[in-house]
Amino acid sequence: MDGFPDRDAHLALDAQDPLAHLRDRFLMPGRLLYLDGNSLGPLPKETPGAVEAAVRDQWGRDLISSWTAHDWIGLPLRAGRTLAPLIGAAPDSVVFADSTSVNLFKCAAAALAERPGGALVATKGDFPTDLHILQGLSGLTGAPLRLVDEADLDGALDGAAALVLTHVHYRTGRVRDMAALSALARARGALSVWDLSHSAGAIRVALDRDGADMAVGCGYKFLNGGPGAPAYLYVAQGRLAGFRSPLSGWLGHADPFGFEDRFTPAPDIRRGLCGTPAILSLTALQAGLGLFDGIDMAEVEAKARRLTALFIRGVDARLRGHGFSLQSPREDDRRGAQVSLAHPDGYAIVQALIEAGMVGDFRAPDTVRFGFSPLCTRYVDVHDAVERLDEVMRTEAWRAPRHGRRRAVT
Amino acid sequence: MDGFPDRDAHLALDAQDPLAHLRDRFLMPGRLLYLDGNSLGPLPKETPGAVEAAVRDQWGRDLISSWTAHDWIGLPLRAGRTLAPLIGAAPDSVVFADSTSVNLFKCAAAALAERPGGALVATKGDFPTDLHILQGLSGLTGAPLRLVDEADLDGALDGAAALVLTHVHYRTGRVRDMAALSALARARGALSVWDLSHSAGAIRVALDRDGADMAVGCGYKFLNGGPGAPAYLYVAQGRLAGFRSPLSGWLGHADPFGFEDRFTPAPDIRRGLCGTPAILSLTALQAGLGLFDGIDMAEVEAKARRLTALFIRGVDARLRGHGFSLQSPREDDRRGAQVSLAHPDGYAIVQALIEAGMVGDFRAPDTVRFGFSPLCTRYVDVHDAVERLDEVMRTEAWRAPRHGRRRAVT
Repeated sequence: MDGFPDRDAHLALDAQDPLAHLRDRFLMPGRLLYLDGNSLGPLPKETPGAVEAAVRDQWGRDLISSWTAHDWIGLPLRAGRTLAPLIGAAPDSVVFADSTSVNLFKCAAAALAERPGGALVATKGDFPTDLHILQGLSGLTGAPLRLVDEADLDGALDGAAALVLTHVHYRTGRVRDMAALSALARARGALSVWDLSHSAGAIRVALDRDGADMAVGCGYKFLNGGPGAPAYLYVAQGRLAGFRSPLSGWLGHADPFGFEDRFTPAPDIRRGLCGTPAILSLTALQAGLGLFDGIDMAEVEAKARRLTALFIRGVDARLRGHGFSLQSPREDDRRGAQVSLAHPDGYAIVQALIEAGMVGDFRAPDTVRFGFSPLCTRYVDVHDAVERLDEVMRTEAWRAPRHGRRRAVT
Repeated sequence: MDGFPDRDAHLALDAQDPLAHLRDRFLMPGRLLYLDGNSLGPLPKETPGAVEAAVRDQWGRDLISSWTAHDWIGLPLRAGRTLAPLIGAAPDSVVFADSTSVNLFKCAAAALAERPGGALVATKGDFPTDLHILQGLSGLTGAPLRLVDEADLDGALDGAAALVLTHVHYRTGRVRDMAALSALARARGALSVWDLSHSAGAIRVALDRDGADMAVGCGYKFLNGGPGAPAYLYVAQGRLAGFRSPLSGWLGHADPFGFEDRFTPAPDIRRGLCGTPAILSLTALQAGLGLFDGIDMAEVEAKARRLTALFIRGVDARLRGHGFSLQSPREDDRRGAQVSLAHPDGYAIVQALIEAGMVGDFRAPDTVRFGFSPLCTRYVDVHDAVERLDEVMRTEAWRAPRHGRRRAVT
């Protein structure tokens, strides 16, 4: 006995799990230990049929009339309404559009429009695409970009227009205090913009309650929307009237079919739309969101904490002496649905694990990252993952020459 | 005999048409006269299988490994290489990404970066989303936006950074002289940005030869890529080194998997990428592009001219006295693959035609627009369209009360 419960104990947890039934709603390849739902959520069983109907019955048969007959035109808002309760947002404050990166640009630019001359503030080492987008916006507008350590945020917010932060950090899985940091931004006259890519669908998010001004996030991770699924953006109801997206494409117009030269933003959250949405990808996304219907996010969060806590316990008990160090917080309530371990040979280890049928991912330079998406991960998977990792380390399978490359490409 | 050839004469043209075989590569609903391929191209037969494979075999079975195993990561560039010869572009000067609107923003902003302080110039009444995007960019950056009549372009280009024009006008179908207008922009120190949404896949486009600096376009019209298919952008090879997109998301990075805070643009056209592409929609788009494999765009253009010329001849011969006036150019070489007719009751007429099984579209305030996508339209369809339109007008079917609404929603 080494402090890590045996397989039967894990199976017993599955038997008591109120969310266990959700696993059967995914088409998971047999015997694969998939711990990468935080990078690409697996395929829901409903999705292939929904996509095929969109291709054959809607596009193929009803052609252009599908924009109204199948309400393609309303799909971005309908999907937003489906997501809203999962992230603590009022129903009409969320819309699906574009990518997370593009939506972040819209929100940060909207903050600049409300706070002319203000700076953009973000933290070093945060989600790279968010930082890259802010760099692009700064270059275009001349707004200063301040990239600081989190401890230095208070000083950096002097004269800031926007504070842009990820809610759960992609590398460590650490959860930020949305209420406290949104309040800090507000107190300093800046608008808060949250990236929920690694929290929505995994833990509780309470945008309205926590006073977030704007938020964006991705559809293909914990929301199981499919590869490159459309992203979403949220604007707090009190901020909507002042929200101006510089990506003012035709679908954000108050009257998209008026064909006017002059842009007038839609009165509602649809002002966050830009071009024509990718309907096939959006259809898959909407099918994935359907899995959350009737699900209590408090249950989802509780399961995420239990799964990750168990895995950490297994690593502590079984992986000592193999050179891993925990990058994720030990405190359950500060951790998203992932566990990250640092290891100097992380890349080779992840490759060896994949060959052993266990999929996590590697994030340069040294992070081995495992996602425990609460809808599709079983407690017994945690047990088996610890066993599999233990075996790869004990047998030194990762030292084989083909695992020596240094760069992940997924 | 009224100057319009009979049905057999049209069937004879189909029998001689070197592109006739392409019609069988679409899943067209029986008996529908679909003249709206310029708004949403019909479903190619190859597409449902390609999408299903992407859903079930790639996403479902191979999950995250599909980014390399099925080269999802290379798909935007592969699709760009497939499109390049159709628009007269060097192979690696085109990439698929985002929407037309978003890509136009990137290109116009890139022009501002190269010509700081310059103005954005466009023509009144051009494709609305392009004008709206320029308005948003102008509002964000302070760059003046000059919206002028085409006759006044020369004067408006004084101190301009970018001249943004559609190649084929969405309303009239008029083709602009890309070589002359690109040269005019260059002579005045501005960069030309062309929107090919209504020309690519319908007529010949020669971006490199005609000296275009940048171009964007949509995947769901004549390219048959599916509803909201990803769009593309082109940057002339000589301009690539100076091209900076402010939408600098992670996939435009020189090393997307390096996870660096600092953005370094990719050395090639992938610097035009932003966030993660919508893989399911992009898969459908790539399947649609496959129909152009081995097809000579000169043949496509010649067929577009013959189809539209025949339709105009039919309208002249049969529709006199019904209040239509031709909005499209009569000169074959100045017209894209569409014919637009102005009519004060255009909306009701389009609705009555749809009920009669003939799909065109209405563009406010008075344009009745018919697209003759050369890959899927037969000569006999032109004959039948004239007959159907004649019947709707003679029987006054469009005067029924349900056609009285004034606004199209497709």
